[in-house]
Amino acid sequence: MNKVITISREFGSGGRELGVKLAQTLGISFYDKELISMAADESDISEEAFLHYDENMPFVQDPLDRHFYSPFSSVYEVPMSDQLFFAQSRVIKRLAEQGPCVIVGRCADMVLDDSINLFIYAKMKSRIKRMNSLETGVAPEQMESRIRDVDRKRKDYYQYYTGNEWGKAQNYHLCLESGLVGVDGCLKAVLAYLEGLNQQ
Amino acid sequence: MNKVITISREFGSGGRELGVKLAQTLGISFYDKELISMAADESDISEEAFLHYDENMPFVQDPLDRHFYSPFSSVYEVPMSDQLFFAQSRVIKRLAEQGPCVIVGRCADMVLDDSINLFIYAKMKSRIKRMNSLETGVAPEQMESRIRDVDRKRKDYYQYYTGNEWGKAQNYHLCLESGLVGVDGCLKAVLAYLEGLNQQ
Repeated sequence: MNKVITISREFGSGGRELGVKLAQTLGISFYDKELISMAADESDISEEAFLHYDENMPFVQDPLDRHFYSPFSSVYEVPMSDQLFFAQSRVIKRLAEQGPCVIVGRCADMVLDDSINLFIYAKMKSRIKRMNSLETGVAPEQMESRIRDVDRKRKDYYQYYTGNEWGKAQNYHLCLESGLVGVDGCLKAVLAYLEGLNQQ
Repeated sequence: MNKVITISREFGSGGRELGVKLAQTLGISFYDKELISMAADESDISEEAFLHYDENMPFVQDPLDRHFYSPFSSVYEVPMSDQLFFAQSRVIKRLAEQGPCVIVGRCADMVLDDSINLFIYAKMKSRIKRMNSLETGVAPEQMESRIRDVDRKRKDYYQYYTGNEWGKAQNYHLCLESGLVGVDGCLKAVLAYLEGLNQQ
């Protein structure tokens, strides 16, 4: 297996955990939040600013970002969220050139031309259960609204930067519902699918 | 594995072949076109009429079907395409009660409550190649338009009868692109996923 694997995921579906286990099993690198500091390193933007705009569409989180387009500004400035996206995309392309790895989120499936693209999702009930067992800072009764909020941002971000529909099966190679068989069940299915690559 | 497996598929993706092989491997029954004669058997409609309306939304194929809704008719009659859908749905539910099986198409994923639902698709180039090797009656240069035509009908039919989006990953448990790893590669991934069912 010499391909980059990208993982898009609904919040709370276990997509990140699947990515970690997949990378471990295949003996390749794993990138998720690491991409933020790597992109910050190669740009003039602070890691804090990157964290603020991570996987957010311009203007959605911060209306002030809009002023970059102001006609009163003498210099045209690129919105911070776009700068973040471009810097992350450059990092993603460079990582892909270095060899196989697993990359979570950040539209990596559309940034790269030749990756294997996974989409992980689960029924809301199963995601609430999972997140309530992982996040202690959110009241259980508020978890559904938090999940819907993160999903909406990811969806908007994906559609803004790729023009494609988030979660449309045909945009990915393999889409897995993780609630039914768990992250480990999904991992086995992904490994079996990847085996098929070597036999084609 | 004691569940019914339903397969939705893009035309030319090998979804039917996957279904046949899956049923063989699991030692369970397989239903595709067979559902038509079974539905005809249990209704007063001829198999020919069923074939005409199979996986077609009302009015799409035959504008005459519309007259059933005519305000000038003294008796309200259900359109033939709806009669077919209802008869097939009854057959699908009865089959599911009898035990595990594989059912291709006909919105079986939405007709049943507790099935494992697969969606099989592939890039257009790969589907054209596949269909040109299987169908000799269609000129190779016309294959793409034939594929798009069948897909559009399946999509309209699915959306008309289920209100859901055809090909949206979250409507299925497992969605597989078959061009990359072939039908046999997909089969292995499905079997690995199903194994996870027993370990949950």
